[in-house]
Amino acid sequence: MNPLGSVSIYDSIFRTIFTNEGIRAIFSDRAYISRCIEAEVALAKAEATLEVIPADAAEKIAEGCQSVADKLDWERLQHDVEIVGYPILGLVRQLDKLCGESGKYIHWGATTQDIMDTASILQIKAGLDMISRQLNSVRIILVGLAAKYRDAPMAGRTHLQHALPITFGYKCAVWLSSLDRQDERLQQLLSRVLLVQFGGAAGTLASLGTSDIGLRVRAKMAEELGLQVPLISWHVARDGIAECVSFLSILGGTLGKIALDLLLMSSSEFGEVQEPFVPHRGASSTMPQKRNSISSEVILACSKLLRQHAATAQDAMVSDLERASGPWHLEWSCVPEAFCAASGALKQTEFVLDGLVVDTK
Amino acid sequence: MNPLGSVSIYDSIFRTIFTNEGIRAIFSDRAYISRCIEAEVALAKAEATLEVIPADAAEKIAEGCQSVADKLDWERLQHDVEIVGYPILGLVRQLDKLCGESGKYIHWGATTQDIMDTASILQIKAGLDMISRQLNSVRIILVGLAAKYRDAPMAGRTHLQHALPITFGYKCAVWLSSLDRQDERLQQLLSRVLLVQFGGAAGTLASLGTSDIGLRVRAKMAEELGLQVPLISWHVARDGIAECVSFLSILGGTLGKIALDLLLMSSSEFGEVQEPFVPHRGASSTMPQKRNSISSEVILACSKLLRQHAATAQDAMVSDLERASGPWHLEWSCVPEAFCAASGALKQTEFVLDGLVVDTK
Amino acid sequence: MNPLGSVSIYDSIFRTIFTNEGIRAIFSDRAYISRCIEAEVALAKAEATLEVIPADAAEKIAEGCQSVADKLDWERLQHDVEIVGYPILGLVRQLDKLCGESGKYIHWGATTQDIMDTASILQIKAGLDMISRQLNSVRIILVGLAAKYRDAPMAGRTHLQHALPITFGYKCAVWLSSLDRQDERLQQLLSRVLLVQFGGAAGTLASLGTSDIGLRVRAKMAEELGLQVPLISWHVARDGIAECVSFLSILGGTLGKIALDLLLMSSSEFGEVQEPFVPHRGASSTMPQKRNSISSEVILACSKLLRQHAATAQDAMVSDLERASGPWHLEWSCVPEAFCAASGALKQTEFVLDGLVVDTK
Amino acid sequence: MNPLGSVSIYDSIFRTIFTNEGIRAIFSDRAYISRCIEAEVALAKAEATLEVIPADAAEKIAEGCQSVADKLDWERLQHDVEIVGYPILGLVRQLDKLCGESGKYIHWGATTQDIMDTASILQIKAGLDMISRQLNSVRIILVGLAAKYRDAPMAGRTHLQHALPITFGYKCAVWLSSLDRQDERLQQLLSRVLLVQFGGAAGTLASLGTSDIGLRVRAKMAEELGLQVPLISWHVARDGIAECVSFLSILGGTLGKIALDLLLMSSSEFGEVQEPFVPHRGASSTMPQKRNSISSEVILACSKLLRQHAATAQDAMVSDLERASGPWHLEWSCVPEAFCAASGALKQTEFVLDGLVVDTK
Repeated sequence: MNPLGSVSIYDSIFRTIFTNEGIRAIFSDRAYISRCIEAEVALAKAEATLEVIPADAAEKIAEGCQSVADKLDWERLQHDVEIVGYPILGLVRQLDKLCGESGKYIHWGATTQDIMDTASILQIKAGLDMISRQLNSVRIILVGLAAKYRDAPMAGRTHLQHALPITFGYKCAVWLSSLDRQDERLQQLLSRVLLVQFGGAAGTLASLGTSDIGLRVRAKMAEELGLQVPLISWHVARDGIAECVSFLSILGGTLGKIALDLLLMSSSEFGEVQEPFVPHRGASSTMPQKRNSISSEVILACSKLLRQHAATAQDAMVSDLERASGPWHLEWSCVPEAFCAASGALKQTEFVLDGLVVDTK
Repeated sequence: MNPLGSVSIYDSIFRTIFTNEGIRAIFSDRAYISRCIEAEVALAKAEATLEVIPADAAEKIAEGCQSVADKLDWERLQHDVEIVGYPILGLVRQLDKLCGESGKYIHWGATTQDIMDTASILQIKAGLDMISRQLNSVRIILVGLAAKYRDAPMAGRTHLQHALPITFGYKCAVWLSSLDRQDERLQQLLSRVLLVQFGGAAGTLASLGTSDIGLRVRAKMAEELGLQVPLISWHVARDGIAECVSFLSILGGTLGKIALDLLLMSSSEFGEVQEPFVPHRGASSTMPQKRNSISSEVILACSKLLRQHAATAQDAMVSDLERASGPWHLEWSCVPEAFCAASGALKQTEFVLDGLVVDTK
Repeated sequence: MNPLGSVSIYDSIFRTIFTNEGIRAIFSDRAYISRCIEAEVALAKAEATLEVIPADAAEKIAEGCQSVADKLDWERLQHDVEIVGYPILGLVRQLDKLCGESGKYIHWGATTQDIMDTASILQIKAGLDMISRQLNSVRIILVGLAAKYRDAPMAGRTHLQHALPITFGYKCAVWLSSLDRQDERLQQLLSRVLLVQFGGAAGTLASLGTSDIGLRVRAKMAEELGLQVPLISWHVARDGIAECVSFLSILGGTLGKIALDLLLMSSSEFGEVQEPFVPHRGASSTMPQKRNSISSEVILACSKLLRQHAATAQDAMVSDLERASGPWHLEWSCVPEAFCAASGALKQTEFVLDGLVVDTK
Repeated sequence: MNPLGSVSIYDSIFRTIFTNEGIRAIFSDRAYISRCIEAEVALAKAEATLEVIPADAAEKIAEGCQSVADKLDWERLQHDVEIVGYPILGLVRQLDKLCGESGKYIHWGATTQDIMDTASILQIKAGLDMISRQLNSVRIILVGLAAKYRDAPMAGRTHLQHALPITFGYKCAVWLSSLDRQDERLQQLLSRVLLVQFGGAAGTLASLGTSDIGLRVRAKMAEELGLQVPLISWHVARDGIAECVSFLSILGGTLGKIALDLLLMSSSEFGEVQEPFVPHRGASSTMPQKRNSISSEVILACSKLLRQHAATAQDAMVSDLERASGPWHLEWSCVPEAFCAASGALKQTEFVLDGLVVDTK
């Protein structure tokens, strides 16, 4: 798709360092458009169930949209994004054609942001699921390390000076305590973050009339997608997204702390641990004897990138009026990048801890 | 104390704009030192209960430390901070003298950071309590506004363009929905944040021997202070502090969104609302007819400052080894400032919403 | 290259909104590797000129490296990046094979960071050249607008309230004044930023012996590439990069200010300007009559993204010892992204100002 | 002034660690109000010279304002700040009374921001002068260290691993190279930053009529104050302020890099340097033998704080229309704090380098 190559470390030749294909598969633009289609289909189904649109229209739409990502004219879509500023108008136009007569019922009563937000939340749901699994893997490894090295003495250092002795198991247990709290955070934020979006042009569901039918469509659509139902439209109440990205940054902070400890402990002078050995791993272009702690370096870098993404997500909260002019765009950048960086950092942490070479002498 | 005057907007002539005396009373340096003393006294009591130090020593210490803030030689303390880099050594020296024979049992088995962290958490506990009350006041006002203006029509605007009509009550309900989630966040973080700190030099409680007596002192000390007991020392597991300051920033994001809406709605062209009228409030030095929306401006500014504080708190997580060289210092800056800004923003929000002049025509 | 699609807004379906193909062609990974090759060739030429390596070796290397990007085994290279943590070892290995006998003289006396930094600087040079041209185009447009609307009266607004009348030409002149200073900044930073890097493993040029031959190779290499000669290696003196990205963010601040003014002025209530009309541009999926100010929104978003990139670049300055473990990686992310965002914001600014519809009544 | 004590590390008991009294004397609120008065007096003098106000009025105003800071009713002023949102209206009212009949000519044709911006610039001018002197002191020390330890060998370390040997003098020279460029930056930004502000309500100088008299007053006022004359009002063209604070952050980046090196080199394992010895300096409350590198820690913390201040200053650039609602307030916080942190970091750097204990064995 990009004959020029890629710019971002999450897409380019550096991508296997900073992230992994699993999370990229969740947050790529192709996946995003697929999620948008999923949202449109769920909306149609919900509206058909509640007789807002004909029942067979929803079926036709669901049918027409099956594996549709492969049939899309992506160049055309890209062009429409450039003109319109958003992908939904162009996408709906293409879907419309693919669904024949029933096509006109696609996007019924919805606004662009309803679909895009719901698509983002579906990505976030899958992303948090992946982060949760990675986090648990790291915790399990740390439980093992804490037990194994429970009595392995090493210098405790404060202000980089020798203080009292500790054990390496104690150190691992401190790391673990922080990750245990991270898991608790993750579980608690789900109900605030994984909200369907459906509100229509100004968020009031006016497009579906003045009865409560809009609210019922919203609830049904959430059910279809396995999402929560918000009390009210959240087009401009973005605290959930901000909390989610801030969580990833706080998680990154803990991983960064682990990485910094590992970097110091693997320095020539400390010589207490080494990253796992793989031929040529961390090799130097000038000094064959060296083995650089490349995973720890990447984790540290990711933790810093995550901090900026969190600031961006918090910035995006200050939306104007009923739908924002500018701030919302920030999420299109920081949400996928933050998940890529967090998942990449977890991947590297899992790798480095799982195979950590500990010098117990 | 500062003949030169003050530098920070939270201390200087601008302080009544950006914060309030209540939160300053919680986070000032004088309050901090008092909290340090409180932590030392609680430690002594806990150690006496568990027979680590003589029972009457704890009593003498508690006695000697009563209202001791007024008896301290603050200039001496300031000087010691400069030399040592931390206030505890100098403080303990002064307390020692004030407690006679028993003075030598002060700070028994503790390290500087045990006392400073516990003091910070005591401040944070009081700070969160105040934030919680302010947040609830704002929510109650919004409940009232949402009901009162439930049917008051106004233009819904997306991308700053007229979209469909909404009601002002609807808008207030959207604001409220975000603040309701903020309250839930606040309640959930308490158990992760309000942790006592007591670990000794390297966090291992080695100073109290190899039995479980250290753990029991920690639990007792927590009980004395109304704090939670951590599973392990958190000298370098700072996720709780980072979560707390990030929460304040996310809260600030919601307040900033409200303020931006109010600013736009109170512009000459929109003319939908006005900040409460107080003689000379928001007056211009050149144009007597003007009334500037000064509260909304301050809220918006505070939301941006909070974002930077959150980034700082997340940065502070990347601590080295058993006690950090540098990162920890960041918290001394961002924790008090973040609470001041958040409380200030809530004060202004409460004021402006409570007396909001709404033009319903 | 990415069957999954792309994650970043600079690579994905959103890329024509947030950036442009010209700057992507400069900062893509393919371009980066080409620049690395360019650096290796220049090094070989310099070393041949100074008789460090045989003259015909440099010729053979230059020959072998012509259009070599197309001959590279990119998958292999990607794999090497993952293992080694950096692309140079794998790249040199491939180049070596392509250059036959002379291949062994590639990368002579250099370290990975010498080549990667020099490649980055070559990208930055081209990038700043493009930014400079875009900036001048915007300035020329503003000169025109300031003259054309010199006497077109409009409300001056302070605190979003009507103050005294101004003219639209005056407003354009204020915008221009800031961009004039930006151009001055850009010109002044060139000599501090566009520095060749060549220092060998620890920056001391020890690989070329103890004479001044290393310094002379460095100077010659700079000359080959049209870069400046640093007084000393800057592997861990990253102020130039930080200044460059900070400049882009400050430039973004001015563009963001222009965009915010345009957004407000194009609101339904203000109705003073409109973004250029192109069929379907800024169209709404629900309301056919709407025309959203999509360029201004994007500019505003880019200015906020740039701010985070500047913070990241400043963070990257705090490098450890002779070559950094982690901080340097940050530049791989923030430098390309910052140029993409700045160039994208300038593109949108040029578009919107050049065709701005001004309602002078 | 603050019976409660102070909140910010620049005002509180921590202030001698993070900053110094010299820079506080420049950026305190008392100094700020004095600068505001200085601006008002210079304006009156300029206007008298150009016969906008009576010549004796300016004399009376100058006389009445002499040492006036001591005569001000500060409590009243504080109260006015709270009501009006800005200190100028209340200040002018007090000055008016102190200047008798001529009082009415104070602030003639000016707007609040004219005076506050000019006052800030006067502070910044003094602040940059102090930073420049401190920077030069550090550079001179580094010149000495680079020469003295020119041949003192030590391990060069990349990725925290031993690479090739370097000398400590070489390391100092790398640090110096960065600070040399910082000095160049500082010199170049002066002409863009040290601009007088005088534009009246909407920046157009309309208050002084339609002739060029306003421009001449502005030029004369600049001359009075030793400032530059801007081409046009910069109420909402804040690139100069943003550049200045960004510069301080980039400077902080270099100092942070030095501090990180020193911290690592002074660790128990490296043992290459120690911070200067002063009795009790960096003492531990638990371990008498320890000597913590407290200056390096503070420098590192300051460099991180500065980064946030730079982001805030860049955020403040995005001002709305002719005078901003909110963004400007950010400068009141980040400008004084950034100067305090930068000056504090330089103080600590000078101290630590000047007395550095280098183990040359």
